[in-house]
Amino acid sequence: MAIEEIVGRIAEDLEHLKQYTATQGEGCTRLPFTKEAQGAVEFLKSTMQEAGLCVTEDAAGNVIGVLEGVDSEAPCVMMGSHYDSVVNGGDFDGVAGIVCAIEVARQLKEKEIVPQRNFVVVGFCDEEGMRFGTGYFGSGAILGNRDVAYCKRFKDVNGVSIYDAMNSYGLDPEKIEEAKWPKGSIGCFLEAHIEQGPVLDAMGIEIGLVDCIVGIQRHMVTVHGRADHAGTTPMDMRIDAVEAAAKVISKIPDWAREKADGTVATIGYINTVPGGVNIVPEKCEFTVDIRSKNNDNINDISKRMEAALEREVKAIGGSFEIKNTLTITSVDLSKDMLKIMEESCKDHQYSYKYLPSGAGHDALEIGQVIPTAMIFVPSEGGRSHCPVEFTKYSDFAKAATVMTDLAITLLEK
Amino acid sequence: MAIEEIVGRIAEDLEHLKQYTATQGEGCTRLPFTKEAQGAVEFLKSTMQEAGLCVTEDAAGNVIGVLEGVDSEAPCVMMGSHYDSVVNGGDFDGVAGIVCAIEVARQLKEKEIVPQRNFVVVGFCDEEGMRFGTGYFGSGAILGNRDVAYCKRFKDVNGVSIYDAMNSYGLDPEKIEEAKWPKGSIGCFLEAHIEQGPVLDAMGIEIGLVDCIVGIQRHMVTVHGRADHAGTTPMDMRIDAVEAAAKVISKIPDWAREKADGTVATIGYINTVPGGVNIVPEKCEFTVDIRSKNNDNINDISKRMEAALEREVKAIGGSFEIKNTLTITSVDLSKDMLKIMEESCKDHQYSYKYLPSGAGHDALEIGQVIPTAMIFVPSEGGRSHCPVEFTKYSDFAKAATVMTDLAITLLEK
Repeated sequence: MAIEEIVGRIAEDLEHLKQYTATQGEGCTRLPFTKEAQGAVEFLKSTMQEAGLCVTEDAAGNVIGVLEGVDSEAPCVMMGSHYDSVVNGGDFDGVAGIVCAIEVARQLKEKEIVPQRNFVVVGFCDEEGMRFGTGYFGSGAILGNRDVAYCKRFKDVNGVSIYDAMNSYGLDPEKIEEAKWPKGSIGCFLEAHIEQGPVLDAMGIEIGLVDCIVGIQRHMVTVHGRADHAGTTPMDMRIDAVEAAAKVISKIPDWAREKADGTVATIGYINTVPGGVNIVPEKCEFTVDIRSKNNDNINDISKRMEAALEREVKAIGGSFEIKNTLTITSVDLSKDMLKIMEESCKDHQYSYKYLPSGAGHDALEIGQVIPTAMIFVPSEGGRSHCPVEFTKYSDFAKAATVMTDLAITLLEK
Repeated sequence: MAIEEIVGRIAEDLEHLKQYTATQGEGCTRLPFTKEAQGAVEFLKSTMQEAGLCVTEDAAGNVIGVLEGVDSEAPCVMMGSHYDSVVNGGDFDGVAGIVCAIEVARQLKEKEIVPQRNFVVVGFCDEEGMRFGTGYFGSGAILGNRDVAYCKRFKDVNGVSIYDAMNSYGLDPEKIEEAKWPKGSIGCFLEAHIEQGPVLDAMGIEIGLVDCIVGIQRHMVTVHGRADHAGTTPMDMRIDAVEAAAKVISKIPDWAREKADGTVATIGYINTVPGGVNIVPEKCEFTVDIRSKNNDNINDISKRMEAALEREVKAIGGSFEIKNTLTITSVDLSKDMLKIMEESCKDHQYSYKYLPSGAGHDALEIGQVIPTAMIFVPSEGGRSHCPVEFTKYSDFAKAATVMTDLAITLLEK
């Protein structure tokens, strides 16, 4: 199979999938349990069938295609990603990983591989969590981490719960736990994904071998001062919430840089109350998002931030609170799987680089309990979650080639 | 006249005026050209008449009461303040200065002073500028700074122009220029006002002698970065608008402190775009309000801010704009008038302190062209522009006593 033909097949699938968006012309909006999701699911099912897979849709809305192995009871090799998107997102985030996995199945057939165990392609439902403020719904379900209470708890902006949305969509939420795979039935998992960052594109590297999914801590910080007239209140008689907050915020990015290991820290949101040009702010809220493959670095930055806040609010006579809104521990990915893919890159003379994933993925959920790896393809300009998100089809084809080599190695055993 | 009696009269007037609010129980809301304004105007007119003044309402809605002097053509001595308020403001900001000036008129009568020139009490219309986004309407009009075009230009949130509001109220906006006083007809102006700051209250001082109304510069600063994924974009590949902005914002208050002459600087508003916890901010906007009696200090802080922005955006690869939204030059008040009031404080054993006004006032408009002074009374806790605004009636009585001494001195000449 010439690489051009692989490029063509992947291009055809991805071009076709572009139509399943609620925001035609303004990027991909494919929320879970909608007609756009259904359209994508139906297409993935038929494409999987054409690739020779035995296809089902599970109780969580995951699409599952199986290429049966000699020992169909042995732990399977699973590859895939998610078919939902954010609002006004790109055409590749998620779904390209499923298309690449289907391409692997096609090549296994074409190469007449006799798999010793099942090869499973999966299209997960609702990784982004955009609609219900959650995430990893389908991948969580196959691990047994989703139940009826969970489905009833989370609602979209219109007050529709996951439970109700599933019912309307034609799935029975009462059966959600049937989506769980028996313990030991999944031998390993591989997810191909666009990088969603600028590193590979900037360095001109074709394949990213993801050795770690970073840990994340998110905080909402509130500094309390006192509202006063900006003209009549002397500097030494004011409790300026912004002054204390800015003195801390200004240092956080440098603390991340000092770690010099890819640790990042972002203050994405700042709000001032009451927000008048002529009023000393009584409140300054800001978010902090810290990520690192080294959990100690995350904890250290959080601690330094807390110490700095204590120092700065003491200086002005104010107070503060830190509300931890998210803590995820970093996950190391499978060295064995990565090593096989590294050898494949060398064989094909693809440039490659080990790098961590700074974003969460289905692989983060699954990687907690099952040997897992990820392969990244370059994102042009690092853009994602927006309509201009772009990756060359030839890059996906290279990833599918490496993935096929990995599948062959794993399925021979 | 015992001070207790003066306290009683001032208390009676101010208590009566409290009813003219559109937000009963939630502070004073007395916008210009409303029935609340009309209520206050009618009460002020009758109170002025009872005090023996000859009362008129001018074309701008100012209430003017004249105690005629021997030479009624000589430049007059004018005292007063404004009768409008902000939304949900206090009961004293503005109107207390008119009540004190009326009390001066009463005492001149009681002391049987024969004024050599006219003594004029004025209640100005629309100092706050709350309704039309303007300010100093009535005081500007007596100086000849308001015309029909001005009245037509500014509109309230319902699209009603000053012009239309005046018509509905019963004033003829076509005659606005008739409110102008002939050049030289106003010899000097004194405004009594609550401090709106914490200095006098904190120091336990009874009288503030205002020697200067500070200059103000306001800027809207926008730092432009680039939106990127907060997890996947390495620190050295991001253009983080908040990082550059915070490094500048954190220094501005200290630059004001360094001046050690009462210079103040406030960042009251910060906004981040797009504002997501997991997105590197592409834009950070913030306001800066710098005030000082020394205009060089204001310019210096503005220049240091610009230089720091240049340095910080260069470091990240972004850009910035500074939009100057207000520039007011500081006004020195009349040393002669202040000296007379200082002697009066000493005579009555009132504690006093020279201080600048950090807020604008009708005296700022008038002080540009006519010898002007201000007298401040303590604001409890420095609070103003809010329902809890409070000053003891006895403090107003002390101010009225000092003002009477000033009036007598000026009217004898």
